[in-house]
Amino acid sequence: MVLINGLPDDKIAISDRGLQYGDGLFETMVYRAGTIEFIDAHFARLIDGCRRLNIEFAQAGKLNNELNIVCQSLIGNDAIIKVIITRGSGGRGYLATSGVEPTRIISTHPLPIYPSHYSQVGVKVRLCTHTLSENVALAGIKHLNRLDQVLARNEWHDADIAEGIMLDSTGHVIEGTMSNVFMVKAGKLFTPMVDKSGVAGVMRAQIISLAAELNISVVETNVHLEDFMEADEIFISNSVIGLWPVSQIDNTLYVVGPVTQNLQDVLQQAKR
Amino acid sequence: MVLINGLPDDKIAISDRGLQYGDGLFETMVYRAGTIEFIDAHFARLIDGCRRLNIEFAQAGKLNNELNIVCQSLIGNDAIIKVIITRGSGGRGYLATSGVEPTRIISTHPLPIYPSHYSQVGVKVRLCTHTLSENVALAGIKHLNRLDQVLARNEWHDADIAEGIMLDSTGHVIEGTMSNVFMVKAGKLFTPMVDKSGVAGVMRAQIISLAAELNISVVETNVHLEDFMEADEIFISNSVIGLWPVSQIDNTLYVVGPVTQNLQDVLQQAKR
Repeated sequence: MVLINGLPDDKIAISDRGLQYGDGLFETMVYRAGTIEFIDAHFARLIDGCRRLNIEFAQAGKLNNELNIVCQSLIGNDAIIKVIITRGSGGRGYLATSGVEPTRIISTHPLPIYPSHYSQVGVKVRLCTHTLSENVALAGIKHLNRLDQVLARNEWHDADIAEGIMLDSTGHVIEGTMSNVFMVKAGKLFTPMVDKSGVAGVMRAQIISLAAELNISVVETNVHLEDFMEADEIFISNSVIGLWPVSQIDNTLYVVGPVTQNLQDVLQQAKR
Repeated sequence: MVLINGLPDDKIAISDRGLQYGDGLFETMVYRAGTIEFIDAHFARLIDGCRRLNIEFAQAGKLNNELNIVCQSLIGNDAIIKVIITRGSGGRGYLATSGVEPTRIISTHPLPIYPSHYSQVGVKVRLCTHTLSENVALAGIKHLNRLDQVLARNEWHDADIAEGIMLDSTGHVIEGTMSNVFMVKAGKLFTPMVDKSGVAGVMRAQIISLAAELNISVVETNVHLEDFMEADEIFISNSVIGLWPVSQIDNTLYVVGPVTQNLQDVLQQAKR
């Protein structure tokens, strides 16, 4: 099902700024067991992203109603729900017309079924060649300017490789193409800062908060590739996959360690 | 008139990667006096951009035919012709489906009529606060990830200000929101390199080539803001405006100098 500004449709005006300039943002959410997981966190990030991009989004109520309609249409089947908000249609070049209502696009997609060993023994990942663009003003936002992720993800077609790790231009590990990354060293949890590039993932925030509750020391910091490769444990996260241990980065092997296991168990229980 | 993959239509599937990820590029061309200006240069940049983004664009012949149809529909009226090429529709997340044909969107727009003093006595511009994202792999390409330009252009609504100058994070002048920039010092022409950010404009290349023909020394270099502000002459360029002298940057005034005048005259004659 697709709703565009509340109406069933699967096409959008080519004048929409989402197409013309990538002028908008999105959320990818999981509808499971009759509920949208982490709905409040997704809404909060969406609203904050609109604020940072100066998109005057005053339709949160409408969006919420439309999400309810979409959920009902799923008749209890698990699904991905993707929400795109653009600055709306038209404007003279880059200058947006003031007072134009942002475009709301809600679409549902099958929930991917991943091999069970991904979450149990971990995934094989690779280091991407394409590096992330850097811009303090855009960092953290899940905006529609995703050429970096597209170019990085299309570097490999080996189905055994579940994710690619992306660096910035200075050799710091930032994130995966579709996930955030964490590493464990001497029992402490570290995750790269996303203040110059990268996305501030909803699951990333959940894990940081969960770690604090479990009295696991968690630090957002600069993570250089060399330090990352020498970690005791590594895992990746996003709203759809939850948490996957990393078993291999290119030719380097990792084990599913106790911190990863602990967080994964508690996260799984929290969902139930 | 709008043609999408050769057919009249003004809406596009929301699954198109142009909307989903800004996964594509564009050209903005001027149709004037019965011809598309600098058509070969625009085509060459489009093809090169597709190559750099790994978009398998093998439809240049089709695109050319469609441009002919669009031009005929204009019945001799001057217009802007915008071409968007996206990687096409669908794919599982950032991974593109192989073999999908890129989407071609051709649209016509009224040619803007600018005050005649813009080209004669110059334009008032401002320095933008929003800085450009940096990425060697994307620099120069006229891709659809244009949030930087949108955010910079929407910093001002004073119609007297014709353009905003954008810097990178290290304080180097790179370009305008919709134009490239040039400065003249001691008779020599300088323009910022666009190898870390910025767009390699078609008109920029024309001017560099024209300057060489006129035996004006032209250097692509790093241009720090302080040097830029102290230039003897400054001008901006793009395919639509041609060349506009800059008469004012915030509170600093500039005159239309001999190098600017010379280039502008010859450019005007070259068009005739």
